[in-house]
Amino acid sequence: MVAAAAEIVPHLTTALSGPLNIIESTILERQARIESWFRAQWRKTPAPLYASVDLRNAGYKIAPVDTNLFPGGFNNLNPAFESLCIQAVQSALERLEQPVDRVLIIPENHTRNRHYLQNLALLQGIFVKAGFETRVGSLLPGLDRKMEINLDAGATICLEPLQREGANLVVPDFQPELLVLNNDLSSGVPALLEGLDQLIMPPLNLGWDQRLKSVHFGFYRDVAQEFARLLDIDPWLVEPLFRNCGEVDFMKRAGESCLSRNVESLLNAIRKKYDEYGINSDPFVMIKADSGTYGMGVMSVHSPEEVYDLNRKQRTKMATVKEGQKVTKAIIQEGIYTHETWDNPNTVAEPVVYLIDQNVVGGFYRVHPQRATNENLNSPGMYFERLAFEECCNSPDREQSPDAHLNRFYSYGVLARLATLAAAREMQNLG
Amino acid sequence: MVAAAAEIVPHLTTALSGPLNIIESTILERQARIESWFRAQWRKTPAPLYASVDLRNAGYKIAPVDTNLFPGGFNNLNPAFESLCIQAVQSALERLEQPVDRVLIIPENHTRNRHYLQNLALLQGIFVKAGFETRVGSLLPGLDRKMEINLDAGATICLEPLQREGANLVVPDFQPELLVLNNDLSSGVPALLEGLDQLIMPPLNLGWDQRLKSVHFGFYRDVAQEFARLLDIDPWLVEPLFRNCGEVDFMKRAGESCLSRNVESLLNAIRKKYDEYGINSDPFVMIKADSGTYGMGVMSVHSPEEVYDLNRKQRTKMATVKEGQKVTKAIIQEGIYTHETWDNPNTVAEPVVYLIDQNVVGGFYRVHPQRATNENLNSPGMYFERLAFEECCNSPDREQSPDAHLNRFYSYGVLARLATLAAAREMQNLG
Repeated sequence: MVAAAAEIVPHLTTALSGPLNIIESTILERQARIESWFRAQWRKTPAPLYASVDLRNAGYKIAPVDTNLFPGGFNNLNPAFESLCIQAVQSALERLEQPVDRVLIIPENHTRNRHYLQNLALLQGIFVKAGFETRVGSLLPGLDRKMEINLDAGATICLEPLQREGANLVVPDFQPELLVLNNDLSSGVPALLEGLDQLIMPPLNLGWDQRLKSVHFGFYRDVAQEFARLLDIDPWLVEPLFRNCGEVDFMKRAGESCLSRNVESLLNAIRKKYDEYGINSDPFVMIKADSGTYGMGVMSVHSPEEVYDLNRKQRTKMATVKEGQKVTKAIIQEGIYTHETWDNPNTVAEPVVYLIDQNVVGGFYRVHPQRATNENLNSPGMYFERLAFEECCNSPDREQSPDAHLNRFYSYGVLARLATLAAAREMQNLG
Repeated sequence: MVAAAAEIVPHLTTALSGPLNIIESTILERQARIESWFRAQWRKTPAPLYASVDLRNAGYKIAPVDTNLFPGGFNNLNPAFESLCIQAVQSALERLEQPVDRVLIIPENHTRNRHYLQNLALLQGIFVKAGFETRVGSLLPGLDRKMEINLDAGATICLEPLQREGANLVVPDFQPELLVLNNDLSSGVPALLEGLDQLIMPPLNLGWDQRLKSVHFGFYRDVAQEFARLLDIDPWLVEPLFRNCGEVDFMKRAGESCLSRNVESLLNAIRKKYDEYGINSDPFVMIKADSGTYGMGVMSVHSPEEVYDLNRKQRTKMATVKEGQKVTKAIIQEGIYTHETWDNPNTVAEPVVYLIDQNVVGGFYRVHPQRATNENLNSPGMYFERLAFEECCNSPDREQSPDAHLNRFYSYGVLARLATLAAAREMQNLG
């Protein structure tokens, strides 16, 4: 469902106490300083190829809650953003030491998910229009020849079988210099992708088989502290607090006491902050599978006791994530109320910001009419509302108020870039 | 005058004989090869900071006829292109070896030209939104303090007096690391700008006091030949033929015989090409001041005799250009019919394409209701029609026909980049 976004824009509930808008107005005032700082950061740690960042805006704080390095929603961006995506891809690939002319995209194996295939077609189109010969090579087991899939509006996507030629991955009659991963490797790195000479972006070790949310948010904590020092603000205003547990097993009830203890400690820490800022809401936390994605393995918790009281259905839901991977680690993350709604006061929304390289290239709202302000919106029943072009993302205007849409989306772009910077450090750290 | 460009689009007269659309369809088919070639070229010779390129599309040929390295029409771009401009400025400045945080724009001295001041405000806005502290330092004689000028819609532009501090150019309380020239230096390099340690973009030696159109089109000839070899087409399809004369003096009638001889030789060369392609039009040439700008010092000529028959008014018009500079050199350039019209069949139009770095960031049509298809449209009475965003400039779509607007503007972007590449070589050659 795509609304005429120029008319319908998200509404931020402003009836809250607390330092409403302090982040947005500070970000706007210090724009030149922030951009200078970002430039210095990207010189030290270049950004990953692309990312999508889920944000939550509670009014008194705005923070990223999930950073996806294999974004799958390019089809949800406003088509008017396409030129920006094309230019960003060109600039990212022109910076590489070795010239690249041929690109092979390696997607997820979702052959029946129309939305994902639309995303894939869009992504391939961006690389093609950026001037790269671009094919899609599929990891689908048993695929032994081209598979053409018809999409809406007469478009098709063509999946080709991947083959090894020594240390190179190819598809028939096509030798790519660059492999673009759009597969988050939840089930591990396939043998086909191991020991390749070709450049792979993002690198294999950023897959969800190796990446941990708790590591990402550890780097994010450093980034948020540096950023907060730069602006002389409390880092809490841009950061979700978190704890993590070692091994957990939701089915076997192993690690429950660690979870419960950390939920309690985190709830106390949030309550302290709420008191400090006079925020009159119930603290809550999100327990998330530490390598989970697709909104799976996520639940809201309001008290330490809830961890012990999970029923069988809840345990099952938390125990496995994408592709049946077993959850063995969990992160306990501060829950951030979203005080944005779309169209009517009961339809809760959260922004998702897309980046290519260090550039914000668009975004959309994830909207869920059946969820509350303290729940995970990445769940069945959600839909996406595009941002209108004038509202994208890199053109702050100090002549307008901090909560003008242009400026709100600029702030969102800053927060999303902070999360991307944390991912850049994660990437550098993995080597 | 800005029309609802999404509805009104230029109309290309298709009643011509000749290989109509051959360039556009070839460019579209070989897009990946062209982009790969451009990438290799920009690695060898980086593009100048910005440029605007005037094109003429006769159907059977499309070519640049003027390349401006100090573009003054950012206000004529569709505001929807602004994000593209911002991203392109960020990427150009991030590539510099020395980090830049503060930018000083040095504009033309046109304090009464509202259009130019709007351009200046737009340009400053792009740098500010790209995250650079940006001021405007004016060369206006006698300016000894800030001058605020009110523009439309409550906007203002602030001109500040330039000062030397040793080998640095500053304005009060502001030490820029980068000087952005938006002044074409028609009257020569002012002493204030000489011997500076700061980075200046574009470099001083690209000013019109030193640059010659004939040198630019000499480089363009090489570029066009390489490009034509790449696509296996006749370079004439993308190149205006030209000749040039040494010293001329229109008032003293010096150099007339050289002009006349070259007009004749060029008309013959064009006629030969018209015969080869079965084009049933009268050849014509443009005589242009070799360092002229602003559409000044330009005339259409259809026979060698016309050079001898100029009346006093015509001679005066050709003898001096911007800021009263005397014309001492001329280029005789193949005249290219424009077969594009806007809105009605008698309103002639030509595209102007804007680049920042090597990126096409927008464009507009220069439209002139009182001019013919074989005349200079850059003259009083012209106006500008914006391109709609969907039609910009870097997103070719092979699913659509070569003359779909998206694809036409992609072709225009390719031609404009060829001219920019010639300017890049000019710049490298000047050292």
